Amino acid sequence: MAEPLRIALAGLGTVGAGVIRLIEANGALIAGRAGRPLQVVAVSARERNKDRGVDLSPYAWEDDMTAMAARADVDVVVELVGGSDGPALTLARNALGANKALVTANKAMIAHHGLELAGMAEAAGVALKFEAAVAGGIPVIKGLREGTAANAIERVYGILNGTCNYILSTMESTGRDFGEVLKEAQELGYAEADPTFDVEGIDAAHKLSILAAIAFGAQVDFPSVETEGISRLRAADIEQAAALGFVIRLIGIADTETGANGAPTLFQRVCPYLVPHSHPLARVDGATNAVVAEGNYSGRLLFQGAGAGTGPTASAVVADLIDIARGDVGLPFSVPAAQLTPMARADAGHRIARDYLRFMVADRPGVLAEITAAMRDAGVSIESMIQKGRAEEGGAVMVSIVTHEGPEAHVDRAIELLEGSSSLVEPPLVLQLL
Amino acid sequence: MAEPLRIALAGLGTVGAGVIRLIEANGALIAGRAGRPLQVVAVSARERNKDRGVDLSPYAWEDDMTAMAARADVDVVVELVGGSDGPALTLARNALGANKALVTANKAMIAHHGLELAGMAEAAGVALKFEAAVAGGIPVIKGLREGTAANAIERVYGILNGTCNYILSTMESTGRDFGEVLKEAQELGYAEADPTFDVEGIDAAHKLSILAAIAFGAQVDFPSVETEGISRLRAADIEQAAALGFVIRLIGIADTETGANGAPTLFQRVCPYLVPHSHPLARVDGATNAVVAEGNYSGRLLFQGAGAGTGPTASAVVADLIDIARGDVGLPFSVPAAQLTPMARADAGHRIARDYLRFMVADRPGVLAEITAAMRDAGVSIESMIQKGRAEEGGAVMVSIVTHEGPEAHVDRAIELLEGSSSLVEPPLVLQLL
Repeated sequence: MAEPLRIALAGLGTVGAGVIRLIEANGALIAGRAGRPLQVVAVSARERNKDRGVDLSPYAWEDDMTAMAARADVDVVVELVGGSDGPALTLARNALGANKALVTANKAMIAHHGLELAGMAEAAGVALKFEAAVAGGIPVIKGLREGTAANAIERVYGILNGTCNYILSTMESTGRDFGEVLKEAQELGYAEADPTFDVEGIDAAHKLSILAAIAFGAQVDFPSVETEGISRLRAADIEQAAALGFVIRLIGIADTETGANGAPTLFQRVCPYLVPHSHPLARVDGATNAVVAEGNYSGRLLFQGAGAGTGPTASAVVADLIDIARGDVGLPFSVPAAQLTPMARADAGHRIARDYLRFMVADRPGVLAEITAAMRDAGVSIESMIQKGRAEEGGAVMVSIVTHEGPEAHVDRAIELLEGSSSLVEPPLVLQLL
Repeated sequence: MAEPLRIALAGLGTVGAGVIRLIEANGALIAGRAGRPLQVVAVSARERNKDRGVDLSPYAWEDDMTAMAARADVDVVVELVGGSDGPALTLARNALGANKALVTANKAMIAHHGLELAGMAEAAGVALKFEAAVAGGIPVIKGLREGTAANAIERVYGILNGTCNYILSTMESTGRDFGEVLKEAQELGYAEADPTFDVEGIDAAHKLSILAAIAFGAQVDFPSVETEGISRLRAADIEQAAALGFVIRLIGIADTETGANGAPTLFQRVCPYLVPHSHPLARVDGATNAVVAEGNYSGRLLFQGAGAGTGPTASAVVADLIDIARGDVGLPFSVPAAQLTPMARADAGHRIARDYLRFMVADRPGVLAEITAAMRDAGVSIESMIQKGRAEEGGAVMVSIVTHEGPEAHVDRAIELLEGSSSLVEPPLVLQLL
């Protein structure tokens, strides 16, 4: 058998420990498939003396994880530290700068610095792989980079955050409100103590920007992802959606358009969508992720599985290591980093959509007239409107509207017209129908 | 840009013509991703003068397709002729024997000769790829060979034949019988004039044997796939299943067991299964395919998309060509052919299952007693039994039984006990619950 692939592993949280366990448990199988063994030679983490349930004594310990890249006995560095900058980024730069391959699960770092790191990897002629950064154990980066490589991708979208999907499907099945379900999810370990990145859609936006770059040959552009989380959703929204034949899911969606100057522009949005029951994404419950890629020859492809968790994430990290052991260097974003196109953010205003609008309004005469007048003045055509009879929270009443198809700009204009109205007790919630 | 990858294409049916169209339409995109252009240099088919909707004048024509492998200006041969033997196999052997890579969509050839061809490819150091042979445009071969490579695969199963799935989901939605729906499918071009390979499960068995080889490191063993098609299903079976909360889908399923001597044995079955409504495969309708792989770290992964059709199949063929253009040789079955284990066929008798049994019986006293006595004597525990009141086809009455969980051998024994009984007007139908 050929020489082992020698690995330095930084970050020994649950995923890092999981990678070590996986390599130990499936080692013979992996060596058979990769043509050579995977061998962890060095490890590093913030704290040395912590019980992680794995025996670290076979591996060299580095106090300074960023120094691991300098080890002569290492072929590839695995970065599982997290954070878009800081030690993770220093380590990544050091590794690629030292001509060592890099495998990472760090979506924030790739979303912010993917272009730079890909350029470094290509200059060094080494692999930069990040399958675990998007949709956990689902081989969707590979699916897009290789499986659909013959296609112009027309659209890529999916459920990219397991925490949000768990919360939404639990709200749906129990009828409980966001705050209550979040609290339970935190107690069960499905949500972080600070859930902001997950519930405000930032984590999904990181992942979407990576998928979009690969799908469309665009420079990764996380800052231009339009992002709305799930924290403003109420049990009543989900109930209302259900009555209309929809479930609510946090969806990341990206496609390209032709801008005013003829150059391609990039549309990227993470937002709760109303998904019709008949759509495959409507049946994705719990912490599951699912990604749909629509190719101009392949048609619609769906990839579904566990979006997080120790085992699935470790599976994706080790799949990247096996690819590297097999000699697959590849290009991180499918085309050379220098050929990725900087795409302006698409103007969403002319996009045609049906919307769900929810207003919390004061319970007094004339409020409905005010809302419907704004709709009329903005050119928004109303398909259905429901005012729930019972008052909530100090007299506020919920009014929900579903529009006919029309340009997004019209709905934006209607919302603008209502801005500052004393009839509204909180800003309106605007969701689209998928 | 580097030298083009030079392609000889044999077989110019709808898929062959589709491959040419795809390479023309997406050529620039593909060259960017592959790092070099794909260039068709020679084509061949049985008939030269036939309008295929593509201009063949840029390409050299070969009357004898098996001679294309000898062309010095060709790097890779694409075989889209079909048939397990004959010209397809001769061409495949010639190509690999001449150290040229081979891409094929030919499931029958890989199911019958995959081991030999993989050995030839490995000896020559060239690629043998067959993504299009299984599940059309879905990158499931890649998913298994690379995406889940870190995992011991516990089970692989799925909907592998679009024609059967179309027929079953149409029977379900229209309440019509098999023969009628098949005829319509033939008129619509969804089923072949001779539908045997599809409706008797042979096509699905070809595909399953390929998936099983990759998933379990087993020698491809098509002859040992237990195969039952859909032609015996009646509208009444589907109705009965629906009443119980199930849909009927033709599923191919494979896993491994430990045989009596401690060596692994291979279980492979293609059969209509009763699939609970809550299962993701229950929602796969029409000509769609879907494959589930269960890894010991990744958990359950689902790959879904178009299982056939010109565009999706061409997409898979060209994805293989892009992999080859990128320098990915790989191993056809993930491990070297010589390391694939010959696995004996697993003894299914001890497997625990719940069954749906359907009898067409004579409408006379004592028949139910005879059936239930056979069940009792064989140790089969009955969960529910329904006799439909109205007589069909010359007095035959339908009796359907759902069993409690028990060994398959017990059900086999019960069926044996009833063999030759004059009460049964046709052999019983036995389906399992997934």
